[in-house]
Amino acid sequence: MAYKNRVELIPLKFRRIEVGEDVIEILCSLIRRNRLKLKDGDVFAIADKVLAFYEGRIVDYQNMPVSEDAIRLAKRYNLEPGFVQLVLNESEKVFGGVERALLTLTRGILMANAGVDHKNAPPGKAALWPKNPTLLAYKIRVELEKRFGKRLAVIIVDSKVNPLRRGTVGIAIGFSGLVPVIDCRGKKDLFGNSLKITFMNVVDDLAAMAHLLMGETIESTPFVLIRNAPITLTEENYSDEVKISENDCLVLNSLKEYYYCPRTGA
Amino acid sequence: MAYKNRVELIPLKFRRIEVGEDVIEILCSLIRRNRLKLKDGDVFAIADKVLAFYEGRIVDYQNMPVSEDAIRLAKRYNLEPGFVQLVLNESEKVFGGVERALLTLTRGILMANAGVDHKNAPPGKAALWPKNPTLLAYKIRVELEKRFGKRLAVIIVDSKVNPLRRGTVGIAIGFSGLVPVIDCRGKKDLFGNSLKITFMNVVDDLAAMAHLLMGETIESTPFVLIRNAPITLTEENYSDEVKISENDCLVLNSLKEYYYCPRTGA
Repeated sequence: MAYKNRVELIPLKFRRIEVGEDVIEILCSLIRRNRLKLKDGDVFAIADKVLAFYEGRIVDYQNMPVSEDAIRLAKRYNLEPGFVQLVLNESEKVFGGVERALLTLTRGILMANAGVDHKNAPPGKAALWPKNPTLLAYKIRVELEKRFGKRLAVIIVDSKVNPLRRGTVGIAIGFSGLVPVIDCRGKKDLFGNSLKITFMNVVDDLAAMAHLLMGETIESTPFVLIRNAPITLTEENYSDEVKISENDCLVLNSLKEYYYCPRTGA
Repeated sequence: MAYKNRVELIPLKFRRIEVGEDVIEILCSLIRRNRLKLKDGDVFAIADKVLAFYEGRIVDYQNMPVSEDAIRLAKRYNLEPGFVQLVLNESEKVFGGVERALLTLTRGILMANAGVDHKNAPPGKAALWPKNPTLLAYKIRVELEKRFGKRLAVIIVDSKVNPLRRGTVGIAIGFSGLVPVIDCRGKKDLFGNSLKITFMNVVDDLAAMAHLLMGETIESTPFVLIRNAPITLTEENYSDEVKISENDCLVLNSLKEYYYCPRTGA
């Protein structure tokens, strides 16, 4: 039987993509080859990695000049100096790190190694995030809408780690065409209580859904079509709505404050 | 056409649940009423909130004795003292907070307000997490498997905030029947590079998928069936695999260290 409200995730597999290939053309050909009849509200999740190849942001970090800072951080966190230099170039802030990873702020997003990644990049090279993920998501969405005549959304997906959790989950580093966050403040719950502080992060839930199918190794699934998701389409640019400041952030603000153990009072 | 590898999310809606109702019976009746023919590998995502009603963990916080600590924290973070007392009772650690939320460690998970929640609880009362989410997920899975004769997985979903992101995403606070994290270390990527540090967090990606359908207000969707997800079933208890220590945690370890701005050197 059919479930009217079911959400579908359709993985679109492709061979390994090379530098300079036109990712929009590839996606369009996959849509046609798989005979997907697009519908209004379809969301395309795209792995940031293939967009690095598309934009030529695949960098040889082994032969680049490095700063004193890069050398120092590389030594401390067991990373290659050239790789660290790339991370510094891509970062607004570096908060510290653990073995083989720095915690950085890049384009307003908290991320391991500023999104600079060896995985599925040619040996000795690293892939960088799109220069402007919001603009790129917009460009791809508009092109897809033009070709297929439907109202769509696009999210660009990278993977990230969460505090005290092992392993990566998906995050939307750029998006276009949908409202990213639902403001639930003032809405009533099932008991008629009015919600006071809750927002719901739609784009990161969607990114996590896609990430599960994209995988981390040889899944070769750079695109996932998400169909019938409960989203609101928009032409507005809401790219800043999903980011908050350090002072408004529960995690960052709390960890900068004091540390309290209710069991011991220490 | 059918897409062989597509993943499906089927929301199972129900009316508001009351304290003491048998959530397992409700889920089973919904499965039958919706004529879902279960398959091996089906994952049931269950909202933690309905399990609070099931276990009777709905607490009147307005008339409970409170400690000095609770009064102090309530004042500082604009919360009710009884509510804060509940949070302290449920917490292993409190890291600090922002307006109306404390950052806590509870059952090894970093969470706002220790998972204690007013939303969709009777006025003046709050819902607590299951006493033992792992054991409860196991109990529900075994009961479902017995009744339907299929190998299943169960995850218990709450919502949480991520650093520097606005709004909640899903997190699996308990699960049973599936391998929660894929260890990608040593696996080869598309270029033959060997992965060095990557794990993939399957349960939290799944929880985020379900959270999108469960919503935060009056969605009345306490259960989501996730079908055809790329998971590995297991009888083993992997509940600790998805948690890491503060020292191994990129976010917590980094924020306790130093603070470095590559742009200014400060």
